[in-house]
Amino acid sequence: MPYHAPVAEYQFILDHVVGLDQVTATDRFADATPDVTAAILTEAGRMSQEVLSPLNRSGDQHPARLENGVLRTSPGFDQGYRAIADGGWVSISAHPDHGGMGLPMALATAVNEMMSSACLALQIIPLMTQGQIDALEHHASDALKQTYLPKLVSGEWNGTMNLTEPQAGSDVGALTTSAEPRGDGTYAITGQKIYISWGDNDFTDNVVHLVLARLPDGPPGTKGISLFLVPKLIPDEHGKPGRANDLKVVGVEHKMGLHGSPTCTMQYDGATGWLVGREHDGMRAMFTMMNNARLGVGGQGIGVAEAALQHALAYATDRKQGRTPVEGGTGAIVDHADVRRMLTTMKADIFAARAIALACAVAIDMETATGAPDWSARAAFLTPIAKAFGTDTGIEVANLGVQVHGGMGFVEETGAAQYLRDVRVTAIYEGTNGIQAMDLAARKLMDGGEAAHALIDEIEAQAEAARATLPDLAEPLWQASETLREGLDWMIAQSDLTQRFAGAVPFLRAFARVLGGHYHLAAAMAETAAGQDNGPRTRLARFYLTRLLPEHAGLLAHATAGADDLYALSPDDLAA
Amino acid sequence: MPYHAPVAEYQFILDHVVGLDQVTATDRFADATPDVTAAILTEAGRMSQEVLSPLNRSGDQHPARLENGVLRTSPGFDQGYRAIADGGWVSISAHPDHGGMGLPMALATAVNEMMSSACLALQIIPLMTQGQIDALEHHASDALKQTYLPKLVSGEWNGTMNLTEPQAGSDVGALTTSAEPRGDGTYAITGQKIYISWGDNDFTDNVVHLVLARLPDGPPGTKGISLFLVPKLIPDEHGKPGRANDLKVVGVEHKMGLHGSPTCTMQYDGATGWLVGREHDGMRAMFTMMNNARLGVGGQGIGVAEAALQHALAYATDRKQGRTPVEGGTGAIVDHADVRRMLTTMKADIFAARAIALACAVAIDMETATGAPDWSARAAFLTPIAKAFGTDTGIEVANLGVQVHGGMGFVEETGAAQYLRDVRVTAIYEGTNGIQAMDLAARKLMDGGEAAHALIDEIEAQAEAARATLPDLAEPLWQASETLREGLDWMIAQSDLTQRFAGAVPFLRAFARVLGGHYHLAAAMAETAAGQDNGPRTRLARFYLTRLLPEHAGLLAHATAGADDLYALSPDDLAA
Repeated sequence: MPYHAPVAEYQFILDHVVGLDQVTATDRFADATPDVTAAILTEAGRMSQEVLSPLNRSGDQHPARLENGVLRTSPGFDQGYRAIADGGWVSISAHPDHGGMGLPMALATAVNEMMSSACLALQIIPLMTQGQIDALEHHASDALKQTYLPKLVSGEWNGTMNLTEPQAGSDVGALTTSAEPRGDGTYAITGQKIYISWGDNDFTDNVVHLVLARLPDGPPGTKGISLFLVPKLIPDEHGKPGRANDLKVVGVEHKMGLHGSPTCTMQYDGATGWLVGREHDGMRAMFTMMNNARLGVGGQGIGVAEAALQHALAYATDRKQGRTPVEGGTGAIVDHADVRRMLTTMKADIFAARAIALACAVAIDMETATGAPDWSARAAFLTPIAKAFGTDTGIEVANLGVQVHGGMGFVEETGAAQYLRDVRVTAIYEGTNGIQAMDLAARKLMDGGEAAHALIDEIEAQAEAARATLPDLAEPLWQASETLREGLDWMIAQSDLTQRFAGAVPFLRAFARVLGGHYHLAAAMAETAAGQDNGPRTRLARFYLTRLLPEHAGLLAHATAGADDLYALSPDDLAA
Repeated sequence: MPYHAPVAEYQFILDHVVGLDQVTATDRFADATPDVTAAILTEAGRMSQEVLSPLNRSGDQHPARLENGVLRTSPGFDQGYRAIADGGWVSISAHPDHGGMGLPMALATAVNEMMSSACLALQIIPLMTQGQIDALEHHASDALKQTYLPKLVSGEWNGTMNLTEPQAGSDVGALTTSAEPRGDGTYAITGQKIYISWGDNDFTDNVVHLVLARLPDGPPGTKGISLFLVPKLIPDEHGKPGRANDLKVVGVEHKMGLHGSPTCTMQYDGATGWLVGREHDGMRAMFTMMNNARLGVGGQGIGVAEAALQHALAYATDRKQGRTPVEGGTGAIVDHADVRRMLTTMKADIFAARAIALACAVAIDMETATGAPDWSARAAFLTPIAKAFGTDTGIEVANLGVQVHGGMGFVEETGAAQYLRDVRVTAIYEGTNGIQAMDLAARKLMDGGEAAHALIDEIEAQAEAARATLPDLAEPLWQASETLREGLDWMIAQSDLTQRFAGAVPFLRAFARVLGGHYHLAAAMAETAAGQDNGPRTRLARFYLTRLLPEHAGLLAHATAGADDLYALSPDDLAA
């Protein structure tokens, strides 16, 4: 089942839905001309289709494993990674100072998504490395930048992110890994980290770990955490990988999916590390990396969703069964109403999630290019939505993909089940989707809801503008955004954050639902403006607005129910 | 993680929510006294906890496999099955004429659910056998009954169901397996069947296959299909398993989950079979088995959901992380609002799905005991809802269970992922949930909606009755049932079934949502009537009615959107 990169779809959304033209109009991103954009998307699409996609099953069937302390990766992954590195796909958005292309995050987001569609297990490497590059560009010393950035940008070395410890999951502040200053500018890092994606491999020249640890005088909690760069092999005076550092992989998890991606337990035994950023200020640098990765993980969900849709659509178009209601149809199951409903739902939700992710990327680019606080606030607000809705969409679409296959979906040979097993973790890692929702409902409303209201204002303004040409789409969206605004105001009015947290997940989803409608309407308006009445994008928008958008009302009822009734049920009440 | 059988919960729902007293008041089920009911639930619960539950991981880790043509089952499954057979748990509802207990289906449904919680892979054997017993009791000749029923009822032999063929999935009428009459009362059965659960094993004395096949003069489609009983070993004149029949397992599927349950491809090479029921009337007998199995599969979903909830609750109560908002709390993650929200959602939906399944079982019992057409119509109407909502709940609850575990949910060692992988198939087998929804929206409304309206009338009458005592619960339920009635009337008004099918899945779910509210209200009313104001059941009902019930409105908007907009998007429009 070959994956086909939807290059024209990215191009349309970038050009007509999320406004890439604002980005390319800035000095910073003036190089991202239409020709460059088209070439990047086409080439990355081709590489994803031709090189990465054939590796996806290999990773599932021949998991990465630890053999006498050596990490052995899945067959073909070395060549796949080489293609990613050689194509420059690690470093599209990295700064040209260190060899990056310096192109917009919007383009990088589309490229990352295509690589996820093709082979999620392998795509994690460039995604983590990109986050590390971003963190080092913003927070590392010049010396560290000079040694590490060119190698990370070229893909010769790859990066990992070490936060989690056995006793400290989402509560990063509870970590106990220690960093002892040695007096020579280096630190001795000691402790154990778990769930480290690609903690090692057998095809890059070096692995660079960013590790959160606590200095001897670090206060408890997140305020006492510092960030350290800890390479697998310590670079010599020429910057070449030298002696082995005092760290090792001590275990690889046996997981539900993503078998090709080794999830490692890392042991640091006085490993040599260098401080990144200031002492006790590690969370700030780590957040740079995490925010980058959060958008990226949202894109992973969307990428898998795209692959699952293509896979299910091909099956449904090929599989003949029963009498279908379509005159002149082929008799394939795609013509059964319920199968069509599932596939169209998949398509409509992928569009919504993808547009949200690309809009978030555009906001990041505008922040980078202009430094304007409004863009910064927009990017910050959209990031948790892009992450959670993108990954939830990944899971739901992959789940529908299994269902479209019927019994064939549950047997492993078709590959439909692998998408569901692989994508499941994306709602968990880089901050669970619950954490994303709490971030949205608390931290991202600390501006009194200014960024959120600005977004709703835009949604309503566009709906107003569409009232004359597309009234049946504009009206329900306008109504929904009013309901969303009421929900938002309820959230803002809660000074007790627990009240917000009790409904944060449905609140985030309601926001995503309405935003998805906003971008669908934008697509329909663009089609209409181009002289195509009731074209396929308008029809897809109608499907979404009629059938999927109405979910927002029930979600907002849930979101604003408060915490009191929830805590009225004790854990004992929930027990059998 | 030990499973704890929620015996008191079944007892409460049977006694106070779904009206088991009506069943036990009939002559047919007069033996099901409160003492008997309590003893059955307690003993089956004990067996499930102590014998079956420890086998669940074994089945996952040591899948059943075909070894030189011999089917080898997972370690310990032989003893587990022996405990099921010896306890009489195969035949609770089988007629006493053949050694069954003759007890209500309502009790069998609760027992089946407990066995599913403990070890779904193994529970499939008694579930399939029960369906076969039901089909033979209703449709087989006396000679077949005498030979087979006592052995099936005792569990010495087990039963399977052979419908699907490679080219005919949900479209059973397309099957090509042939039956040639031999002139001696037997038939030669030839063909291949796929997805046969427990097509063989190494611990029962015989395996009895019910096989759909076509006689030489059988017209095309489902009207030309007959049902045959085809034993693995042909009984000799004493009824003992004799010579091997001409059939074999030629393959076992590699599946996403349920590894302990061998899913077989069966090859029949002129195997000897006996007709069950009349020629060309096989679908009728098969439907007896399927309807039985559909309710049972709904119970499988609920059973896995219960196990997943217990598992997640134990983890969340044990795992300490972060600062929780509960004064005097233990600091465990169960006290975080979003974790509490997930667990309470799991609990509330399990109650709803379980009450629907048990109400369906009570209707079947009343049909059996009284033959009244109203009960028959009620049972027929509730069966697809019980199947689809029960299994969807199984998947959603298991999915939430993974999420509650965070990173630990994605690694296999905790077992959280196994619940999700195992339960996923229940939305597919015994008729996909799409097929269930189409059955509901078409066949089950062929009475002009009489059964559906009668149910809504009951929902509204109960809500009216609760207005004085529980107004905050009664009012939203009454409103929701009015909205549901409008949706129902829209469905009935569509003479073109494609219009109904385009929204059948959300229609079924909306019906289940409102029904779930009805039973939650019944529980709250029972608690109130017993003098307990705002007890735990009332608080759980409030959670459901405030947060989950509102979903119905969005579902009904989707359900009544019609097929035109759906088919306005072609398969090409859905392609990338």
